[in-house]
Amino acid sequence: MLISRPALIEFYQRVRKASEAICAPLYPDDYQTQSIAETSPPKWHLAHVTWFFETFLLKNFLPDYQAVNESYNYLFNSYYQTIGSMHARAERGVLSRPTVEQVYNYRAEIDKRMLDLLANSAENQWPEVASRVILGLNHEQQHQELLFMDIKHNLWSNPLRPAYLQRPEQSIYVFSTLNWEDRQEGLVSIGSDADSFAFDNERSRHKVWLDAHRLSSRLITNAEYQNFIDDNAYQRPELWLADGWHHIQKNQWQSPLYWQKQENQWYEFTLYGLEALNPTAPVAHISYYEADAFAHWAGKRLPSEAELEGKLLETPLQGHFSDNSVFHPQAGVGQYYGSLWEWTASPYTAYPRFKALPGSMGEYNGKFMCNQWVLRGGSCVTPLDHIRPTYRNFFYPHDRWQFAGIRLAEDL
Amino acid sequence: MLISRPALIEFYQRVRKASEAICAPLYPDDYQTQSIAETSPPKWHLAHVTWFFETFLLKNFLPDYQAVNESYNYLFNSYYQTIGSMHARAERGVLSRPTVEQVYNYRAEIDKRMLDLLANSAENQWPEVASRVILGLNHEQQHQELLFMDIKHNLWSNPLRPAYLQRPEQSIYVFSTLNWEDRQEGLVSIGSDADSFAFDNERSRHKVWLDAHRLSSRLITNAEYQNFIDDNAYQRPELWLADGWHHIQKNQWQSPLYWQKQENQWYEFTLYGLEALNPTAPVAHISYYEADAFAHWAGKRLPSEAELEGKLLETPLQGHFSDNSVFHPQAGVGQYYGSLWEWTASPYTAYPRFKALPGSMGEYNGKFMCNQWVLRGGSCVTPLDHIRPTYRNFFYPHDRWQFAGIRLAEDL
Amino acid sequence: MLISRPALIEFYQRVRKASEAICAPLYPDDYQTQSIAETSPPKWHLAHVTWFFETFLLKNFLPDYQAVNESYNYLFNSYYQTIGSMHARAERGVLSRPTVEQVYNYRAEIDKRMLDLLANSAENQWPEVASRVILGLNHEQQHQELLFMDIKHNLWSNPLRPAYLQRPEQSIYVFSTLNWEDRQEGLVSIGSDADSFAFDNERSRHKVWLDAHRLSSRLITNAEYQNFIDDNAYQRPELWLADGWHHIQKNQWQSPLYWQKQENQWYEFTLYGLEALNPTAPVAHISYYEADAFAHWAGKRLPSEAELEGKLLETPLQGHFSDNSVFHPQAGVGQYYGSLWEWTASPYTAYPRFKALPGSMGEYNGKFMCNQWVLRGGSCVTPLDHIRPTYRNFFYPHDRWQFAGIRLAEDL
Amino acid sequence: MLISRPALIEFYQRVRKASEAICAPLYPDDYQTQSIAETSPPKWHLAHVTWFFETFLLKNFLPDYQAVNESYNYLFNSYYQTIGSMHARAERGVLSRPTVEQVYNYRAEIDKRMLDLLANSAENQWPEVASRVILGLNHEQQHQELLFMDIKHNLWSNPLRPAYLQRPEQSIYVFSTLNWEDRQEGLVSIGSDADSFAFDNERSRHKVWLDAHRLSSRLITNAEYQNFIDDNAYQRPELWLADGWHHIQKNQWQSPLYWQKQENQWYEFTLYGLEALNPTAPVAHISYYEADAFAHWAGKRLPSEAELEGKLLETPLQGHFSDNSVFHPQAGVGQYYGSLWEWTASPYTAYPRFKALPGSMGEYNGKFMCNQWVLRGGSCVTPLDHIRPTYRNFFYPHDRWQFAGIRLAEDL
Repeated sequence: MLISRPALIEFYQRVRKASEAICAPLYPDDYQTQSIAETSPPKWHLAHVTWFFETFLLKNFLPDYQAVNESYNYLFNSYYQTIGSMHARAERGVLSRPTVEQVYNYRAEIDKRMLDLLANSAENQWPEVASRVILGLNHEQQHQELLFMDIKHNLWSNPLRPAYLQRPEQSIYVFSTLNWEDRQEGLVSIGSDADSFAFDNERSRHKVWLDAHRLSSRLITNAEYQNFIDDNAYQRPELWLADGWHHIQKNQWQSPLYWQKQENQWYEFTLYGLEALNPTAPVAHISYYEADAFAHWAGKRLPSEAELEGKLLETPLQGHFSDNSVFHPQAGVGQYYGSLWEWTASPYTAYPRFKALPGSMGEYNGKFMCNQWVLRGGSCVTPLDHIRPTYRNFFYPHDRWQFAGIRLAEDL
Repeated sequence: MLISRPALIEFYQRVRKASEAICAPLYPDDYQTQSIAETSPPKWHLAHVTWFFETFLLKNFLPDYQAVNESYNYLFNSYYQTIGSMHARAERGVLSRPTVEQVYNYRAEIDKRMLDLLANSAENQWPEVASRVILGLNHEQQHQELLFMDIKHNLWSNPLRPAYLQRPEQSIYVFSTLNWEDRQEGLVSIGSDADSFAFDNERSRHKVWLDAHRLSSRLITNAEYQNFIDDNAYQRPELWLADGWHHIQKNQWQSPLYWQKQENQWYEFTLYGLEALNPTAPVAHISYYEADAFAHWAGKRLPSEAELEGKLLETPLQGHFSDNSVFHPQAGVGQYYGSLWEWTASPYTAYPRFKALPGSMGEYNGKFMCNQWVLRGGSCVTPLDHIRPTYRNFFYPHDRWQFAGIRLAEDL
Repeated sequence: MLISRPALIEFYQRVRKASEAICAPLYPDDYQTQSIAETSPPKWHLAHVTWFFETFLLKNFLPDYQAVNESYNYLFNSYYQTIGSMHARAERGVLSRPTVEQVYNYRAEIDKRMLDLLANSAENQWPEVASRVILGLNHEQQHQELLFMDIKHNLWSNPLRPAYLQRPEQSIYVFSTLNWEDRQEGLVSIGSDADSFAFDNERSRHKVWLDAHRLSSRLITNAEYQNFIDDNAYQRPELWLADGWHHIQKNQWQSPLYWQKQENQWYEFTLYGLEALNPTAPVAHISYYEADAFAHWAGKRLPSEAELEGKLLETPLQGHFSDNSVFHPQAGVGQYYGSLWEWTASPYTAYPRFKALPGSMGEYNGKFMCNQWVLRGGSCVTPLDHIRPTYRNFFYPHDRWQFAGIRLAEDL
Repeated sequence: MLISRPALIEFYQRVRKASEAICAPLYPDDYQTQSIAETSPPKWHLAHVTWFFETFLLKNFLPDYQAVNESYNYLFNSYYQTIGSMHARAERGVLSRPTVEQVYNYRAEIDKRMLDLLANSAENQWPEVASRVILGLNHEQQHQELLFMDIKHNLWSNPLRPAYLQRPEQSIYVFSTLNWEDRQEGLVSIGSDADSFAFDNERSRHKVWLDAHRLSSRLITNAEYQNFIDDNAYQRPELWLADGWHHIQKNQWQSPLYWQKQENQWYEFTLYGLEALNPTAPVAHISYYEADAFAHWAGKRLPSEAELEGKLLETPLQGHFSDNSVFHPQAGVGQYYGSLWEWTASPYTAYPRFKALPGSMGEYNGKFMCNQWVLRGGSCVTPLDHIRPTYRNFFYPHDRWQFAGIRLAEDL
């Protein structure tokens, strides 16, 4: 079922504006900053997602296309080796030019050209145009989440601990007791064969046998994680994966990223600045190593991605997303969708009959299927219309600047 | 079904002697060498496997046990954090004391004490004694394979490329064409629930759904791998996992470990010294990154561990093992067992209802279930009686000093 | 001979304005950039030199002084360990706050307070106030040179190779043949005992015996250095110091910093962008390793700092300085002062009877007297009134982002 | 005055035997060990000094010379780039072949050939033969000292802290109060123009002006150094050079190398094993950074090499050398010669009219004249007949596995 031109133009304009809205509170200085190799300057994100449309749409569908600036193909290529060589990821913060103003001009120019393409491309090209634009918009939505993540880390890296925004007036969130839901053994089908959009890594739909198990009824809270810390967990090797123990020793981790102790009181850095730790909010910015050690300590385990997808398929797609404009997770019930990405016990690998997208777009997902773990469900900085039950996010086991938390499982 | 004392004594003596036989061709200088952090000096292996018996048997079952040398608990502990701190792995080559002679004396003394324990331990302790001794002997067999691997790497690191042994007169090996065996979809049960010995990571037996697929009828040969090299594969990023591409760039890999080009002719370093590359022998000492890239290049994929175990369960347990005393893989048919460990497309993770062994022995396997990949089937330096269809070996995706090769699979 | 208040106020205002004038051509993005650990964001320089006045003048002489922002003492302390801990040097580019605007406000506020102190401090404090202000202004002049150096390196690190400024209309510069001036043996007195300002590292004046020697009549040119490259010098270990050879191998140096070959033609990056290499201009941005290897190749040596000071003492203090507003060295005669700093064969160590300044200011120079080499004479980005014959600049032997060149010497 | 053949043969045999005598107490395992990149396996030293004679004498003077083993030119070349490429320094511990036995056979074979050359070389070649042999023997004596240093470090790196030898019965050493000797200003001549042997770096003799100064009458003791530690010196940045402070922080130095605290008591590792710290023995195994910080803390400075040579020239060449067979420094008077090398405040640079030796031997000394500091006077592991007043030893400022100590000086 093909999307109509007006519907796609509306989607295009909405997503493109959303990225700029996220950057509205920034100072020129903030746009330029890259705190670690994993993050990118906000300016770079804004340009890269634009380069994606120029490269995979405009260059592809417009004969004799003249690039806005030929050098941008080098500067704003992220990791598409088959497109050509690229500026080193860790050195993006060095690019003082193009300036913020030039990047916004680049966006405006590409938007003009894209809207022209969306309105006027040949009918027989429309299916492919539409398919690639939808990929490009999902790509930009992923970078919207990265903008929140990277801005947070950049500001955290400043000893002044500046806030991105003032915290909005508090909505009411409900704390709930941790319960367990039993789930039966059997074959489930996971992954996507849908006509509607899904990344290549969600395909194809396939059967998985699940043994009987149970899932915790909500995410683990800060208070529960504090018990783990207070039980000396960061000093007890028997709780940790070998690589995890090595990593926390080498990096001297004693608590989640963004936790800070002052005068015996825990604080947490949020996009609203440093705040006293909220005991009922879910613990956030946890690495896989920490999630696994917590589960080990609790005598449980993490759920597999098939177990979680089984549950997500039965659950209404609603929760705390970026659309709520509260950019920090809150106490809640269920929390299968939104709030925080949930680490699974599943390494990120190819599904049966996985086929990467053709050409350079094939580098989008497949080449990362090694050394990373799957996370599910979206977070409070994910757009609601970006999520599906089959959605597979993935990070390295030591990463923790993403909005990630813990749900527990156990065998029955 | 409990093993008898005489049977276990025979097994003990056989395994212990085998380790020393592997070291018989070494010079005192060879015992001391550690070429990279991943390898250990042969002397250290001989002492460490002995320490395992002293720690988990003698100290456990003999009241008021007096250690042969208290310091050995620090020097020869490999990675048992719950036993105490240990000498750094990468610094084992620094330990000129105890000397080789002292290590052999240590072995002799522990053997004496162990044989006494095996003969005289209380009946009610026998089940636990036997279980631990069998674990210790399997452990020593694993280190026998490591001895071959490490001796090979140590000798290779010497520009003289010295041989470990003279090559024995060549037995006859048969080259076979690459065929494909189709395998049907369905539920298989993999893993072990057996009474007989299996590592904790093989447990518990559980169902896995397999889609229809096919497996190649033998391992990939050197000649086939040379085609991959000649097709410029080490220069083509689109064939590689992102982490793999990064790794081969950084380390300037252009061929398998132990391949060396001289005057336009490929040679391979073996335990018999540098030899002209044998085109029909299976390609060996391949990393996961290379195995995956080869499969990608060939338009195939690697088999999952469940697919391979399904096949192994139907296959007679025979092949080219260390018992054959030819310490390099040869041309052959089938090759499911022996010859070379086969990389699978399965990350090494816990099976459903996995329970680590109690106490410090729980560190044996479980804590490594992250960032590594499963290999199956054993190799020409594995003892035949050490292998089972359910056996799970595991290495990091960049490791290649183990005897590892490639079998292909594809979806049907 | 004490400086008068009006004279010092004039000096203060002139120096403070000069720093801001250097930054006038920058975009907000440029202020934030730090290309390597050795450079600092321009914004940071502007704040740090201001912090110097606040810390060593205002806090010292004003009772109950209220800092503009207490956190600046952490953020803008460079290396004064006795003042307190400080933000990591390599992480200055992460500080998006305070913003450029806030830094300029900080400068304005400190200027107001400083001018008040300069006008109104007690008479009995004036000698100490004046002495510290003069140190602070010389300090800021050093950072003016660093601003030129760092801006150049930041812009160079951008593949767009953007220019800082448009090149001014070319003045006339004279190329001269390389000649030699013979200088007699004897005792010379070098270093400063003057009442007028000199850094502590220039003191005290002391005798040095010089053997007879000769000095080249001008700096080595790009054309002469190109001969060295064309003679394969970067591939010949016998020309290099051991540490230098190791360094050029590891970093794959094949030419001076800022040289770039395109289609067999050498270009040089300057503050005016990428320009065809000027053969008669002096070779610039040379490390000590390269200067020493060039001298070795030429059958000469570098002059000692005493030899150069002997010559400088007899030479009129004039040359190509930043006052000329041509921010790249040009062909010339003599060139003892200005144009480029000249590497000497003298490691940077303490003179006899060296006494560091009291208190924290003692960290200014003395603690760097290890592993660095002395350079003499100033450069085209040094203010003329900042230089003296006794002035000792110093850098690590591998540094080359400073404006440094080569003068030769030989024994007679 | 040319040395006679019998005299040189006697010298040759004496030095060659001395190297083997140093290794007599070693086990085969000890010969193979390399604890850090700076040390070499004892086996390697024995082979390398032999390679020196083969390369610079036998290959040079014997037409159609057949090397004992062509590969040794790669394995046992230390740093002579102009001879050809070489095995990596840090990887010498990997060379299990040639074995210890083969290395001793190599020595025996080269000795036979060398004695033949010494007896039978043509008269007109004798001056050059003799000159190179003397260089080779001095070279081997330097490696004798390195053998003591490296064996000590290797054994120290073993947690068992094994002793190299049993401590001999204690001779009587005299403790003396620290006094000061005033020395007048004036021109001194330092360096060598002698016919007798001196390294190229000691040449040529030249004048240096010395201001009036004083020297401490003996080396600093362990007790005095302990006061420095107890005064919290390793935690006080103001006492340290910037690079030194960085280095001790990064490496967490809290005391000299080989000091170890147990139950609040200091011990020192010596070639006789771990011993209670002797308060009157001189503090040993000190880096330049520590020597400089100690002098700073004491309100003094280190002497320059010219100041020390001035004193050495007036002092009888006697002291505690390896000839005394006590391989650890003892309390004493004067101690200008022997006991411990004394750090000077002089970076290691070329003397006026320095000429490196011709050909590859020119790499012996000159290329190290950067980033290192001069030490003077020899140590308890230096052979007495190896030392001269003009002798210049040199190490990096962070090195401390050499037998180095502290003498103080101050300006008058």
